[in-house]
Amino acid sequence: MNEMNEAEAARKKFRKELKSGTVSLVLLSILSRAEHPMYGYQITKNIDSGEGSGPDMGQGALYPVLRSLEKTGLLESRVEPSVSGPPRRYYSITEAGRETLVDWTGTWEETRNFVDATLKGDRDV
Amino acid sequence: MNEMNEAEAARKKFRKELKSGTVSLVLLSILSRAEHPMYGYQITKNIDSGEGSGPDMGQGALYPVLRSLEKTGLLESRVEPSVSGPPRRYYSITEAGRETLVDWTGTWEETRNFVDATLKGDRDV
Repeated sequence: MNEMNEAEAARKKFRKELKSGTVSLVLLSILSRAEHPMYGYQITKNIDSGEGSGPDMGQGALYPVLRSLEKTGLLESRVEPSVSGPPRRYYSITEAGRETLVDWTGTWEETRNFVDATLKGDRDV
Repeated sequence: MNEMNEAEAARKKFRKELKSGTVSLVLLSILSRAEHPMYGYQITKNIDSGEGSGPDMGQGALYPVLRSLEKTGLLESRVEPSVSGPPRRYYSITEAGRETLVDWTGTWEETRNFVDATLKGDRDV
């Protein structure tokens, strides 16, 4: 019974760790191809519209990551009034963000290939 | 200059997050196919022998994860004397560990497909 809780906790931890490593990469990627600055809800919709469900990336999960990426200089933002509600913060990628995206994409592919090879059992044990 | 440090810190953070999410999965996978219990150094060698370099998974990084997986009931271990040095702790996967591996593999594939689709630009922006 206690073991069940432990396994469930481990499952949540795994999802959380996998997510925290990938959300930043996904955000940089989406904003690198955006023709115009995007606000949080637009990005969320963009993420939800894809085929794969992906990790749960609701707005609540996105905003802290957007702020963190801006603080690090990878994104920049400006606030603009909205006719239909409160002002919106629009994000765009910086030059440092584009360079980081290239670097992170390389790291991602390396890790992905490594994990996939291990899962497929290409490594002799 | 400060921006360089920030970007470098972000790069390290990204690698660390990606790694913490995948090391546990890789360990469960390797031990699920092991014919005999394995000790830390054997696992490290097994990881290093692969094609892809993968995230840096030296012994220092592995041991805390092995201990954590055992604490959660996904691995079990026993200590055995070694002729050539100090006693070794041998790890094997538990039944709960095998079930968790199936679940995590699903989560991994979902996340991987999602990130790859985003990077390839399959999602319209």
